Amino acid sequence: MPDRYTDFRRIAAELGADAVALVPGANFTRLYRHEFMSHERPLVVVIPVNGPPAAVVPNLELSSFAELGFEGEVFDWRDQVGYAGAFAALAGHLPLDSVAVEGQSMRVFVELALREAYPGLGIVDGEAQITGLRYSKTPDEIAAMERAIAISEAALGETLDQVRIGQTEKHVERTLVQALFAHGAEEQAFGALVAAGAHSAASHAHARDDYALRAGDPLLIDFGARWGGLCADITRTAFVGHVTDEAASVYETVLAANRRGHEIAAPGVTAHEVDDAVISMLEASPYADRIRTKTGHGLGRDVHEAPYVMRGNHQRLEPGVVFTNEPGLYKTGSFGIRIEDDVLITPSGNRSLTTFPRDIRIVG
Amino acid sequence: MPDRYTDFRRIAAELGADAVALVPGANFTRLYRHEFMSHERPLVVVIPVNGPPAAVVPNLELSSFAELGFEGEVFDWRDQVGYAGAFAALAGHLPLDSVAVEGQSMRVFVELALREAYPGLGIVDGEAQITGLRYSKTPDEIAAMERAIAISEAALGETLDQVRIGQTEKHVERTLVQALFAHGAEEQAFGALVAAGAHSAASHAHARDDYALRAGDPLLIDFGARWGGLCADITRTAFVGHVTDEAASVYETVLAANRRGHEIAAPGVTAHEVDDAVISMLEASPYADRIRTKTGHGLGRDVHEAPYVMRGNHQRLEPGVVFTNEPGLYKTGSFGIRIEDDVLITPSGNRSLTTFPRDIRIVG
Repeated sequence: MPDRYTDFRRIAAELGADAVALVPGANFTRLYRHEFMSHERPLVVVIPVNGPPAAVVPNLELSSFAELGFEGEVFDWRDQVGYAGAFAALAGHLPLDSVAVEGQSMRVFVELALREAYPGLGIVDGEAQITGLRYSKTPDEIAAMERAIAISEAALGETLDQVRIGQTEKHVERTLVQALFAHGAEEQAFGALVAAGAHSAASHAHARDDYALRAGDPLLIDFGARWGGLCADITRTAFVGHVTDEAASVYETVLAANRRGHEIAAPGVTAHEVDDAVISMLEASPYADRIRTKTGHGLGRDVHEAPYVMRGNHQRLEPGVVFTNEPGLYKTGSFGIRIEDDVLITPSGNRSLTTFPRDIRIVG
Repeated sequence: MPDRYTDFRRIAAELGADAVALVPGANFTRLYRHEFMSHERPLVVVIPVNGPPAAVVPNLELSSFAELGFEGEVFDWRDQVGYAGAFAALAGHLPLDSVAVEGQSMRVFVELALREAYPGLGIVDGEAQITGLRYSKTPDEIAAMERAIAISEAALGETLDQVRIGQTEKHVERTLVQALFAHGAEEQAFGALVAAGAHSAASHAHARDDYALRAGDPLLIDFGARWGGLCADITRTAFVGHVTDEAASVYETVLAANRRGHEIAAPGVTAHEVDDAVISMLEASPYADRIRTKTGHGLGRDVHEAPYVMRGNHQRLEPGVVFTNEPGLYKTGSFGIRIEDDVLITPSGNRSLTTFPRDIRIVG
């Protein structure tokens, strides 16, 4: 009889494990439609191949956990007592030889608690399979992403209108973030990058409070709202006052590569094929030595998901998959340019969820 | 010869491990004064009891990593090739039988990579000891927390001034978040809780967009800015239009308990003693059945750190320790009240870093 755990049971069986264990995070939120946080207190749900699930839950969280309609035994524990007893009770209730876990979510202290309760326990990293259930987005998830993107684009438009020579990168970031929340963002999906001048060629270029925008500076802004649990991720590179001939030439190259990504993405096409097509355009340009990154990454409840759009990854795109199309060219000490859109694969091809203009924009 | 790794070497030796392994996070940032992010790409620094450290670093991060002045071998890896080879090279360069890790930071997929490269590797959870190095804050860290708190208080004051009956919780949150960024917050330390009416008794009470403030509602706001890598964490419970007699009585009880916390905290006092004193005041009131949580938690680069201010934790407070003094009383379906300040232990006693007024405030 299929239930909400059917896919997880299947994954455990495929991996040769007796169960899947889930911790609070995007997979948990999608399964239970309820967001939990898990700082220093272990909370684990164990879904065996056969039979009802079981859970270890901090006592503090029991009332929230009760909202999930959980179908199995719950072993709660209080701060003052600690969690070893609850894990031991779980092991007594649900014997396991091996468990598949979310390798990129479960932290070692939770795994060690499982190992202590289940001596000799086999731990299998089921990250790809478990998170793979989120590969293709539901209509509701796509709608939430469209909302997050609309909020982001509105905020970006207002921010670019307000940029002036002499403002610091921090000032621009502050304008952007306030606009994001004014337009209804629940959170930022990630720390915004606001990078002007040579800083636009740095990786992780967070806004500086001691750099003031100058005429001719590229201004690279990479950011996104989170709304309804889903993320947006957009980059535009504008130019302060004017654009140099070199920057315009590099920009047109990046734009052409971005356009190629929009052309080629379709169901059945692999991540490798998309990255190969996009990067090949950059490699054919005079700026091949400025290539630094793959074309993009999947996007959804997390900012970085499958499919990683890079050569060598032969995972096929499917309707409902959303990925970032973000070619860039970067020269350390000089400047970087990136143009990033969020692309939805449709039954017949793709649709760019990002519609913000891509032409060269002069600001300030 | 002491160097920046001396404490980590000592911790490894005390735990009977050959090394400490660090991943990007608060401890890493404090050690290297440089923030790294680590999503789906393992980055690990290994600090042996003797000899120079070594690191596994994604190729993409090499230029940022170069800014750290790292003293040892770096084994980098590219997305297209994967990281198993880099970990194997690390193991060939630096043999280990056991390693102490940050159990609450290192994720299972990184640990599994270490286990694969080092067959039979012993994994010890060194979280308490490693994170314990951050127990007592430096003057710079305290200054950053004071800045984060000042930003938070300015934002709270403006927000309370703008609250009106009929606004949704979401509207209040948006006002607050925009004010935080207008006053210079780099980020929110955590997702703000804005809870009115009966929602003030819920745990994790994030703002709703379908609840409008009514006259007589308590309005509980729990939030904080992050600035310079350090966090603020403040809660105030205001009242919309008027305060009921019952709510005023509960408020005075919470306030008295909060005051007790400010009185008792001092060097040498234990976390148990503080929680015991504060909770005892609540237990002696007519509202003992509304107690739900411990007095508070340490605060610093993370929102939740040692010391956990709860009965049974006999960790001693020391000068430089910062913790939250946040007693509360909560009745499900009715209302909750919390008053939270950030308290710094000084050589002679303590100083409340939070100075926002604590008296009953009517808003709207």
